[in-house]
Amino acid sequence: MAGKLKTAVLGATGYSGMELVRLLARHPHVDKPVLLKRSAESNETNIPTALQGLSANGNGNANGKGRLPVVPFSWSALQQAGIDLLFLATPHALSRELVPEAIARGLRVIDLSGAWRLKQAEHRAVYNFSDADASTAAKLDASAVYGLPELNSDKIPGAALVANPGCYATSVILALAPLLSAGVVDRDRGIISDSKSGVSGAGKEPTSRTHFVSVADNFSAYSVFGHRHTGEILEQLRLNSTQFIFTPHLLPIPRGILSTIYVHLNREMKAEEIQSCFGDCYHGKHWIRIFPASKLPEIQFSVHTNYCDLGFSLAKDGKRLIVVSCLDNLLKGAAGQAVQNMNLMHGWSEEEGLE
Amino acid sequence: MAGKLKTAVLGATGYSGMELVRLLARHPHVDKPVLLKRSAESNETNIPTALQGLSANGNGNANGKGRLPVVPFSWSALQQAGIDLLFLATPHALSRELVPEAIARGLRVIDLSGAWRLKQAEHRAVYNFSDADASTAAKLDASAVYGLPELNSDKIPGAALVANPGCYATSVILALAPLLSAGVVDRDRGIISDSKSGVSGAGKEPTSRTHFVSVADNFSAYSVFGHRHTGEILEQLRLNSTQFIFTPHLLPIPRGILSTIYVHLNREMKAEEIQSCFGDCYHGKHWIRIFPASKLPEIQFSVHTNYCDLGFSLAKDGKRLIVVSCLDNLLKGAAGQAVQNMNLMHGWSEEEGLE
Amino acid sequence: MAGKLKTAVLGATGYSGMELVRLLARHPHVDKPVLLKRSAESNETNIPTALQGLSANGNGNANGKGRLPVVPFSWSALQQAGIDLLFLATPHALSRELVPEAIARGLRVIDLSGAWRLKQAEHRAVYNFSDADASTAAKLDASAVYGLPELNSDKIPGAALVANPGCYATSVILALAPLLSAGVVDRDRGIISDSKSGVSGAGKEPTSRTHFVSVADNFSAYSVFGHRHTGEILEQLRLNSTQFIFTPHLLPIPRGILSTIYVHLNREMKAEEIQSCFGDCYHGKHWIRIFPASKLPEIQFSVHTNYCDLGFSLAKDGKRLIVVSCLDNLLKGAAGQAVQNMNLMHGWSEEEGLE
Amino acid sequence: MAGKLKTAVLGATGYSGMELVRLLARHPHVDKPVLLKRSAESNETNIPTALQGLSANGNGNANGKGRLPVVPFSWSALQQAGIDLLFLATPHALSRELVPEAIARGLRVIDLSGAWRLKQAEHRAVYNFSDADASTAAKLDASAVYGLPELNSDKIPGAALVANPGCYATSVILALAPLLSAGVVDRDRGIISDSKSGVSGAGKEPTSRTHFVSVADNFSAYSVFGHRHTGEILEQLRLNSTQFIFTPHLLPIPRGILSTIYVHLNREMKAEEIQSCFGDCYHGKHWIRIFPASKLPEIQFSVHTNYCDLGFSLAKDGKRLIVVSCLDNLLKGAAGQAVQNMNLMHGWSEEEGLE
Repeated sequence: MAGKLKTAVLGATGYSGMELVRLLARHPHVDKPVLLKRSAESNETNIPTALQGLSANGNGNANGKGRLPVVPFSWSALQQAGIDLLFLATPHALSRELVPEAIARGLRVIDLSGAWRLKQAEHRAVYNFSDADASTAAKLDASAVYGLPELNSDKIPGAALVANPGCYATSVILALAPLLSAGVVDRDRGIISDSKSGVSGAGKEPTSRTHFVSVADNFSAYSVFGHRHTGEILEQLRLNSTQFIFTPHLLPIPRGILSTIYVHLNREMKAEEIQSCFGDCYHGKHWIRIFPASKLPEIQFSVHTNYCDLGFSLAKDGKRLIVVSCLDNLLKGAAGQAVQNMNLMHGWSEEEGLE
Repeated sequence: MAGKLKTAVLGATGYSGMELVRLLARHPHVDKPVLLKRSAESNETNIPTALQGLSANGNGNANGKGRLPVVPFSWSALQQAGIDLLFLATPHALSRELVPEAIARGLRVIDLSGAWRLKQAEHRAVYNFSDADASTAAKLDASAVYGLPELNSDKIPGAALVANPGCYATSVILALAPLLSAGVVDRDRGIISDSKSGVSGAGKEPTSRTHFVSVADNFSAYSVFGHRHTGEILEQLRLNSTQFIFTPHLLPIPRGILSTIYVHLNREMKAEEIQSCFGDCYHGKHWIRIFPASKLPEIQFSVHTNYCDLGFSLAKDGKRLIVVSCLDNLLKGAAGQAVQNMNLMHGWSEEEGLE
Repeated sequence: MAGKLKTAVLGATGYSGMELVRLLARHPHVDKPVLLKRSAESNETNIPTALQGLSANGNGNANGKGRLPVVPFSWSALQQAGIDLLFLATPHALSRELVPEAIARGLRVIDLSGAWRLKQAEHRAVYNFSDADASTAAKLDASAVYGLPELNSDKIPGAALVANPGCYATSVILALAPLLSAGVVDRDRGIISDSKSGVSGAGKEPTSRTHFVSVADNFSAYSVFGHRHTGEILEQLRLNSTQFIFTPHLLPIPRGILSTIYVHLNREMKAEEIQSCFGDCYHGKHWIRIFPASKLPEIQFSVHTNYCDLGFSLAKDGKRLIVVSCLDNLLKGAAGQAVQNMNLMHGWSEEEGLE
Repeated sequence: MAGKLKTAVLGATGYSGMELVRLLARHPHVDKPVLLKRSAESNETNIPTALQGLSANGNGNANGKGRLPVVPFSWSALQQAGIDLLFLATPHALSRELVPEAIARGLRVIDLSGAWRLKQAEHRAVYNFSDADASTAAKLDASAVYGLPELNSDKIPGAALVANPGCYATSVILALAPLLSAGVVDRDRGIISDSKSGVSGAGKEPTSRTHFVSVADNFSAYSVFGHRHTGEILEQLRLNSTQFIFTPHLLPIPRGILSTIYVHLNREMKAEEIQSCFGDCYHGKHWIRIFPASKLPEIQFSVHTNYCDLGFSLAKDGKRLIVVSCLDNLLKGAAGQAVQNMNLMHGWSEEEGLE
């Protein structure tokens, strides 16, 4: 397999990490990914079990085909393995801690956490980062590229550190960017994203909130006026906090996000104009599907794919617009987008390894 | 059982009708309800099976305890049975057809359909009614009382015809009425209700849309800018169509509604003021539960009860308010509310038969 | 409320405990139940929140109607409150520890755990009890009454200690007892119960196994050839371990059990004979519903009720029989049955407080 | 695309048909499949919509990439398109009608219905076939190959007509074949398969049984002692009807089957022997995963894959064995197995197009 990219994944036991490993394991330009575990004591020792779906034989005997190397995390182990690209699917505090050294050692990094997504200190405040070396962190904050391929395909190829966007943020930013760029939105009347996510978005940790009996037959809003993805959305869309409301809700399904987004237009428009606005903005963008005016995306259409589906409905007055945005929170909202970023960083087609 | 109210239910095989029969069957002031079936050929012949949950013995033998009388619908049958109050859980076209004669014959009627809820012809247009006797229909349109007990407890007791509100409409109107009455809402900046309902709200008819495989693991918006409950909400809240957006969504759960409602306040307010606004408006109203500012309703809290749960969250700027409203679409959103109306019409406590 | 029974519940925050408190709170012959919490530090301090569904006002202010007294557990507190009957919805080790003193103090006890259900030491072995006073424990093991009202209605009224049966065990024993009593089963060809339970049966503790994402869209067998309820079933039905196989499975639903039970008859029988066998055995038993030969129980029919539904299908050869048994694991499988036992212990109708 | 296999699919709008088209559309050795619609009037005109997930752009404009040809069904259309292999994902009566002519015209056919699976007239009786030409039908009944690749890899390559097995039948036959071949089963003590399937197995037709509200939070047995797949299982495993019981149940999940199978061994065995029995039988069979004795398959492990997962648990007495078999009813139970058969018929690896 000479010539293939050498990758490693820290955090392969989480939902996003597992999905990422699955994608990397069958990517045509990538060598078998190295799974890093943090320490002998950690419950990550069950990596092979968690990923058994990848192996040809569940019993672990036979030909071992599909078995992936599992290595305790250390910088020397990464060096010995000749890793080119490090994926972090770790809690943000750990990403914040590891990235400075990874970059210093010449690794390129795609970080799936919220650690490096925010440029403005006021937005970073919610994460309460404690940086060992504040000036290095500040430089990385400045140089990190927000890894939304449809909007930042100019900066991602040359980036050393790509901050993979949040799942909710991806669904909202992709829905609003074309309209805001086109200057047709009345920002001051307020934009609202009423977003709904499946439970895998809440992570793998068993809590009273993720218990089956709490979620099934239920539906609820949470983190109202206070979700951490709000900052990303504001920064990427250049909105201020009075111009935007983001309300996440928990759906009783394993995966998928649907955002219902309410916008006031600053002039009366026709459906065809809106359609063109989206079509022009995402022309040639493989992973965006724009629906015709008569039909709205549903979660089932995009789940288990890397697509972000966008559709809209315009009020009769031509001034109030609802955009519906759907994606799979673990693919376009996390691991799939990370692979898309990797593709861009290496000059490959954005579709590679994602069909 | 002399002295108890004699009721009949047409449409007892639908979800709301079944729930209504269950409630009536154990209401302390009501005689065993008579189940009306429309014709010998109809599939309503399976009424006893559909309602077997009511019987003491599923096998239908034994003591017959709990068995309810099933009678083919006719005006003479109603007269013979001495019916005082007729419940219609029928399609709106049939309600529109039957109610004039029922009223003419001196029956009181609680209609669960959309047939008699709307005062304004422009809102009635979506139903496309064809009235045999237009002037009688017009009189009934004018005299029908919108059966929302918390807001119309003055008119319901004397009404001959009570139009039981829609499930979505109940969740939205109860959430907004206190704020609009208090005059604190900036109507012109637009009110949005992003509402989500379980599948029983779509009725019992098997369709490709209610197929398990279409609904499970899915979530979608529907009837965007065009749902029939919009007219009720506008009329009851005295809003015009540019002041309000209503977006229904289909949740992969059997029952329950959650509405997330966005409001701009016309002055900066404190959470305590909002709390008081709701508390004052619903003082002594048993079936409304107002949540403290720190906690929002979830569907699980109110499902299988007749409560409408209301909670809110206020933005830091004190000017943008989110109200969350939850109820069980078959109880407070249909059959439970119908019983509450019956209680009011007969001078009983609103709680009777609903605990 | 003089004259009403005074009860206390330890373990009111678990699923069975909560259901039990709901039932007791509206039982006509029972005073408001006292909720016991184990210590100031425990997370049981959230009892009022967990039970808020009981209160008239979710916001906890207002009239306090429905509020139940919460008291730190101590023997003196029980005495001061004049408790007659103590319900334990606690882990079995704690029940094993507390019951001897409770009985010594003259309390009557209904224990919902597995602590006192087994007469044979070999079956108790799986629980690994460590008794402080082995001889007292042995006496209690001997005197405890297995609280299956349909089969032990002679012993329950006089019992000091009632061991409330396991949920799975209830579904299996009620299905098989009539056939075994009638002597029509070929025990040696082997009886199999392939049982399926909703997730509330696994308890409220959040674990990787009860995480929504693990359960939804999934189905699995567990504790094969090793589930703790097996001993109860063997003892109550007087089977030995080679005559019976019990296989539990986890259903992606919140509540309900369905057991599919396979039996070889020792002679060719007709459906009518089987029907009579069940009908005779459960004549007058309110909480058993026997289905006609053409129809089998489903989980939806009995969930949220205290019924155990029984149906069967006979092979054409008249010698192989499948019995299907359904119940709600939190009601007939736990809290409802506990109330049924309380009713028997106090000479009330078995139906009291359970409709 | 010269040199690629030309295929057509009739019945592409059903669940199995859609899954099949998805697989064929990305199979490396297969040309774009032709989707056949039965008549201009039929609701199959919505094929492109139903399959829109395949297209690169949901809006149907843009490059048209991924669009598949849709052609009204006729023999001449098949000839013109140069079709080599015809897939029928049609009701069995239609398959029974079309296959004789297809074979006469020199087409090879893989039929996903139950039309050609059964050799014995007594088993075919349940389908109530009415053949226009009984002698041709009889010849085809005799020559049709039961398309279970793991067991019939010798006959499938040369077959003109492959009868793709039923989903339940696949799960049961693959679990039992190794044990029956090894002669370790006591057939006369009876084999039981308690099987559970997701709702897609019941087909796409909306019925009261597939309505979301009927399925969610529910679980039920059906077709007890009478399911049509029983004949296939008996024939393939050479069992008579008194030796085997098959009980299907409906799971509240979209897809996946788990069969819990109970077997009496005719001698005391060790777990290692059972493990070897499975391992030897399926040596080199890519699509079978055998689990170690300590672990049982769950539906989540195999869903969305073409694997059949097998695991087992042996009673302490070494004589009673439980085998658990899981697969995706639409893949290994239908479309995936059809592709596996196509691979065998054309000398390709069984894995091709299925990873």
